[in-house]
Amino acid sequence: SINSNRLWETLHQTCEWGQAHRYGDNATETGMARLTLNDDDARVRRWFAEEVKKLGCTLSVDQMGNMFARRAGSLNSPAPMIAMGSHLDTQPRGGRYDGILGVMAALEVLRTMKESNFQTNYDVGIANWTNEEGARFPKSMCSSGVWAGAIPIQQAWDLRDIHNPNVSLKSELERHGYLGDIECSAKGYPLGAHFELHIEQGPILPANDCKIGIVQGAQGYRWLTFTIQGKDAHTGTTPLANRHDPLLAASRMIAASNDIAKKHDALASTGIIRVPSNASTNTIASEVTFTLDIRHPEDSVVHAVQEECLRTFQSIASQDGKGVSYSWTLDTDSPAVKFDQNCISSIQAAADHIVGPERSMLMTSGAGHDSVYTSKHCPTAMIFIPCKDGVSHHPTEYSTPEDCAIGTQALLEAVVNYDQA
Amino acid sequence: SINSNRLWETLHQTCEWGQAHRYGDNATETGMARLTLNDDDARVRRWFAEEVKKLGCTLSVDQMGNMFARRAGSLNSPAPMIAMGSHLDTQPRGGRYDGILGVMAALEVLRTMKESNFQTNYDVGIANWTNEEGARFPKSMCSSGVWAGAIPIQQAWDLRDIHNPNVSLKSELERHGYLGDIECSAKGYPLGAHFELHIEQGPILPANDCKIGIVQGAQGYRWLTFTIQGKDAHTGTTPLANRHDPLLAASRMIAASNDIAKKHDALASTGIIRVPSNASTNTIASEVTFTLDIRHPEDSVVHAVQEECLRTFQSIASQDGKGVSYSWTLDTDSPAVKFDQNCISSIQAAADHIVGPERSMLMTSGAGHDSVYTSKHCPTAMIFIPCKDGVSHHPTEYSTPEDCAIGTQALLEAVVNYDQA
Ligand SMILES: NC(=O)NCCC(=O)O
Ligand SMILES: NC(=O)NCCC(=O)O
Repeated sequence: SINSNRLWETLHQTCEWGQAHRYGDNATETGMARLTLNDDDARVRRWFAEEVKKLGCTLSVDQMGNMFARRAGSLNSPAPMIAMGSHLDTQPRGGRYDGILGVMAALEVLRTMKESNFQTNYDVGIANWTNEEGARFPKSMCSSGVWAGAIPIQQAWDLRDIHNPNVSLKSELERHGYLGDIECSAKGYPLGAHFELHIEQGPILPANDCKIGIVQGAQGYRWLTFTIQGKDAHTGTTPLANRHDPLLAASRMIAASNDIAKKHDALASTGIIRVPSNASTNTIASEVTFTLDIRHPEDSVVHAVQEECLRTFQSIASQDGKGVSYSWTLDTDSPAVKFDQNCISSIQAAADHIVGPERSMLMTSGAGHDSVYTSKHCPTAMIFIPCKDGVSHHPTEYSTPEDCAIGTQALLEAVVNYDQA
Repeated sequence: SINSNRLWETLHQTCEWGQAHRYGDNATETGMARLTLNDDDARVRRWFAEEVKKLGCTLSVDQMGNMFARRAGSLNSPAPMIAMGSHLDTQPRGGRYDGILGVMAALEVLRTMKESNFQTNYDVGIANWTNEEGARFPKSMCSSGVWAGAIPIQQAWDLRDIHNPNVSLKSELERHGYLGDIECSAKGYPLGAHFELHIEQGPILPANDCKIGIVQGAQGYRWLTFTIQGKDAHTGTTPLANRHDPLLAASRMIAASNDIAKKHDALASTGIIRVPSNASTNTIASEVTFTLDIRHPEDSVVHAVQEECLRTFQSIASQDGKGVSYSWTLDTDSPAVKFDQNCISSIQAAADHIVGPERSMLMTSGAGHDSVYTSKHCPTAMIFIPCKDGVSHHPTEYSTPEDCAIGTQALLEAVVNYDQA
């Protein structure tokens, strides 16, 4: 059995590096701003390296700064290790659980194994993936993506700090001594399996009164950016019928995308809308850009929603006066992923044992995770635990000590089940 | 008769101070960026002061830098002068006609009078109003507003450069020597009447094949800013029904305001929408703000549109998941204005004489102008001429030499008619 108090204390102790956005009086009532490879991220990495060495692990660092801690199994097999992975970086207004819990839980699993002199058959270990959030260097699941061969390493190295173009991901890896020698790939550091414990970041587990989500895969998503070209005009002197109003068109498009998503039981969301910085109250904007994030567990539905949005947008663009023109780009295409059945079974057995079949449920991840990339090269599955009100990417993100412990125990048992099978 | 060539040459010669945004090869194919009290605005002011002195005018400058050039009438009456006024400042991406034409036409009228040894009965002159655009110091029709007692002078003086909070309107008046001694008010420098020639900035004159718009008044308008408060949430993990999506609500509101305006034959326009700068593609925004500009020649209709928007927005806010909350502020309330019947008649007679009743039309100004404020303290009316495609506040703003000349001739004859009546 894992040690719930030790887990909780370790989790919050390491959050001293990067804590921010206090929202309450208790010591742990802050969010986090531990952006990839900032000084606090470097501190928690050095701490992590010390801790895993204390546990007798070997530590390897690859060319993207991904950290792999490895504990030998009893068979002395050369087979790749069974990894428990997640990330230690956070959003700029992030919380204390997203990613961090997955790494701290993995550490607690190894501590528990060592303490009870338990040895797996095969090597087991921990992966700390660099720049999962893509918040400072704008590419999410960045280094698991390089490892999986989905993102060219040069492109990842060249990513610029979002506020300082003089700083690249590579220059920060060098500054902190985390530009490792090992090739960042499934050949350079192969994994036998990848288990990731993560907070759900949504409201489904609590709504179903479940403690463990057995994640069978991740839904597909596409990110599009639309640019609507209109013509600036005076709001007081230009009759409605003479306007090419891109903001009016964009508004009708965003509303329509929501209607279309509802019809398909899918998600369509606009997070960003921008008018030029010289926009004014009494001028029709010349141009508007907005993002559209479409998701569904079936790729065919993602495509159907996209097609219906494009058709509808085209008809909206030609409404109202002389119409507007629009163009779009596909920024991210992340097809749906199905996780490995053996990994899923290992988690299922652990969940049945810990909370019983009534308190766990099969589910699909709404968000992308490092596991989406690892699944392309090794058997992978994820464990979700509830987080308060489904809130994540926010300072008040919270999971109870009990839920963190349940998830960590499930991680331990899933790895042991998999190792034994 | 005014001298069309001299008018055209003078207009474009003075646009050398502040020209910007070239869009064609011809010398005059640029827009303007002559922001209030920048170095170019100071240059054109000094040039203007020289020119009116050459015409034998006296020049007075008030505490807002408003410039009043005065040519004596034959009666030697102490009555306030009949002013021809407009402004020499432009938008940052403005054109060569908005405001500038009104002042250059007034100058051409005085030049024509002097050249033909024509003397009015009463004094006539020119007003160059400071900061009509409100583009650099954000308050439009700023100094005619102070003159009319509608804007406190301290508030106007304290306006900050929109890009540099260390620079105020007053400090720029001082830097250029345009902080005059005369009280800026209808007492400090009373006017007997105010005639303003301006480009229409809209498509109505060309659509009616008219050369002169006889402006009877200005429509009422209200500027509102709405803030929609939602809750940030992950776009991938948050079901639609669990969201408080302020951008979706704002989009539906903007679309609805357009539908409501159409129903009332009014205008409702959103020029600005903003999400927080840390918005991201995969996060529902926490908050959205947008502006709403409602206009109609009848104040009662402006109010009816506002009321219906507020009711509809309230019902939109409660749709979709758990709803969002919203608040709003009234930023500008500019009631409809009716201009003076005698001034209108003077313009009507001039128009009949110059282009005939078929080629002129009575109309209501869609936009606010300095004349809206002067009308509160002296008989006022405006003359509109067509501008190409109704385009204004844009570098390609254009009126033909012929149309500029027709408008200037109408200004001359209207002033003479008024003076004689
Ligand atoms: N977990 C997470 O936020 N991943 C980023 C990519 C996504 O939006 O799903
Ligand atoms: N002419 C002009 O643009 N005035 C500013 C106020 C308005 O929007 O009507």
